[in-house]
Amino acid sequence: MTEKANSREMIVETASRLFFCQGYAGTGLNQIIKESHSPKGSLYYYFPDGKEGLALECIHHNNQIVTGKIRESLKSTDNCAEAIQLFISNLIKDTEESEYKGFTPFSFWLAVETSSISEALREACQSVFAEWVSLFSEALIREGMESARAKDIGMLIVSMLEGALIIALTKRDKEPLMKASNYLYLLIRH
Amino acid sequence: MTEKANSREMIVETASRLFFCQGYAGTGLNQIIKESHSPKGSLYYYFPDGKEGLALECIHHNNQIVTGKIRESLKSTDNCAEAIQLFISNLIKDTEESEYKGFTPFSFWLAVETSSISEALREACQSVFAEWVSLFSEALIREGMESARAKDIGMLIVSMLEGALIIALTKRDKEPLMKASNYLYLLIRH
Repeated sequence: MTEKANSREMIVETASRLFFCQGYAGTGLNQIIKESHSPKGSLYYYFPDGKEGLALECIHHNNQIVTGKIRESLKSTDNCAEAIQLFISNLIKDTEESEYKGFTPFSFWLAVETSSISEALREACQSVFAEWVSLFSEALIREGMESARAKDIGMLIVSMLEGALIIALTKRDKEPLMKASNYLYLLIRH
Repeated sequence: MTEKANSREMIVETASRLFFCQGYAGTGLNQIIKESHSPKGSLYYYFPDGKEGLALECIHHNNQIVTGKIRESLKSTDNCAEAIQLFISNLIKDTEESEYKGFTPFSFWLAVETSSISEALREACQSVFAEWVSLFSEALIREGMESARAKDIGMLIVSMLEGALIIALTKRDKEPLMKASNYLYLLIRH
């Protein structure tokens, strides 16, 4: 990797962590520059649109991490219900490792915060949720589930996990995610 | 109502709307003072602890609104599954009236944002979620459901609705909440 690509990556990784922990409004460009150990000029060089352009890149970056993990879980077994349980158990591991304080790319509450600020950010987050729903639905369809039901269940999986993660991060307790895991298994199997 | 009580109330209502739309970090005390048309001194008079004390009061205020609506729905019918559908249809009405941009007291994504900033705010939000779960669980127990299952379903209702609301606000579309409503009905009935 060139030094330049490395500097851009450090900015995106640092900004992703800060935006998704502290929120969009709560994160200033100066903090990103400082914590990524980047010269001030390089942030404006890579992201001439400033904060909004950088946030779009961070949404894309975190989405890549999440879709990578969803695809990995789905590939690991032919049984969709089990794949989703595996995805949730990895999500629990990530939140526990961060002691419920750190950076969890699946925690997209930023979507609501930014939706009222920027149409571009709202649309980017909307596409992220749609992609997650599709990944789960398509796997269920491949397994033989009827298409309309698979689409409904895809949406229910993403809704349930986003909500359970919010409560788990607030409680600092995996219990809401464990309950979601059990319920989603039954929902898909029956 | 005395003028004093009115001034305090205006501050809390304005701050509640701003905190729950823009987030805790994204809302400054000056904006609250300006939009509530209050003299600067009155904010510090009523909330000598400043922003954190005011945010605690706003969490309490929004929780009162939400628990009021949950209790009202549960009182309106002996059938818990129907009561929950009624609660969700009112939630949809509220979000549609605000054009998916405005103030929805049930939308507690602030919980995650503030949990990393303040232990007092994290604990307040944790109690809010616990109270909602209890209200639903206790109604299910009164209807004859076994206690452990009722507690699980209470948590699933709150997780599912928080997540579905995040996606609905981002999509500006009631579909995720409608799907949640249908499945929660089936979950409780079967």
